[in-house]
Amino acid sequence: MDRRTQILRAAARRIARDGVRGLRVTDVAEEADVSPGLLYYHFTDRSGLLSATLDYINAHANDVRARRADAGLSAFAKLEQQLLSEIDDDTEVRENSAAWNELRALAVFETELREPLRRTTSAWIQEVARSVAAVQNDDGTAAASDSTRTATILTALVEGLANRWLAGELTVEEAHGLLSEATARLVHLRPNPLSPPRLKETS
Amino acid sequence: MDRRTQILRAAARRIARDGVRGLRVTDVAEEADVSPGLLYYHFTDRSGLLSATLDYINAHANDVRARRADAGLSAFAKLEQQLLSEIDDDTEVRENSAAWNELRALAVFETELREPLRRTTSAWIQEVARSVAAVQNDDGTAAASDSTRTATILTALVEGLANRWLAGELTVEEAHGLLSEATARLVHLRPNPLSPPRLKETS
Repeated sequence: MDRRTQILRAAARRIARDGVRGLRVTDVAEEADVSPGLLYYHFTDRSGLLSATLDYINAHANDVRARRADAGLSAFAKLEQQLLSEIDDDTEVRENSAAWNELRALAVFETELREPLRRTTSAWIQEVARSVAAVQNDDGTAAASDSTRTATILTALVEGLANRWLAGELTVEEAHGLLSEATARLVHLRPNPLSPPRLKETS
Repeated sequence: MDRRTQILRAAARRIARDGVRGLRVTDVAEEADVSPGLLYYHFTDRSGLLSATLDYINAHANDVRARRADAGLSAFAKLEQQLLSEIDDDTEVRENSAAWNELRALAVFETELREPLRRTTSAWIQEVARSVAAVQNDDGTAAASDSTRTATILTALVEGLANRWLAGELTVEEAHGLLSEATARLVHLRPNPLSPPRLKETS
């Protein structure tokens, strides 16, 4: 792990533990065991550090997904795995999720966080939209809904469920069950109960 | 407005403006223009005040819904209105939503907030579940899904979309459009694109 990554990892860990209100650049330097000067050299100021932390969390989530990707999975199973991987008791996933959650809540009050948050959220939505489009190409429902809109809904739902998981209201298993169920219904895989069964449904 | 309500209204407004980290009971007393003694008399301590604020926000949301309820609406339109009413540029709705959002984010760090948050969230979920069940009774999809699970998904989605609205990523109209679309798909009102049209769909 290079020094820059080491600092970003420490920032996510520290935010996940103590929140971001009142967080000083020197706290993160201490957590990362580097000099404050090195931190300012890489990120200029607190705002630059928080923005880079959002990018780091997003990139790390992509790495986790890439490592777990299984070429044998159906398009739907890939989409499902992509969404479920955001909620996991793995220490780093949990810390990153808590830090993301905290930075999103803070953006209501610190407007300078809004632009980096919008940028990283948009990148996440586009990743999910590609997977939604792949499912819809598979099962012929593409014309019924816009993949970017569906991805916006799914990622907002992941955030809502992750908040409840982080606050101890849902277990990982409960959050996964609800997310799988919602994903199936939102991308139109479930049969309409009054309609005849479709051949593709069981794939 | 009685004194107790006046204090809770001030607490929500203050949390919506400045966040809850570092918030002191005396700040809320000042905002409400009452003595700190009166505040301690009603709520014992900071924790009691925050817990009562969650109850107040939930009760206020129910009042808004009751005032707007229109007996002529279909069960689906009632459910939709119930969910959409949480995201609105009306000053008090926005302040309550911001305060709720902030208290939920804080519950990750302050564990004593978790129980009141779980209780108020559960009450909200049960309200929504009743409306979901009414829709499903209307269109015969009751057997296909559990109304409490669907309500849990819908309320988590409202929170996820509200966060993005509060952080300036979505307008009220965009959040409403996404929420309406998701609600229709999650409660099975939309026709499956490959299935024949159903009589009830257009009601």
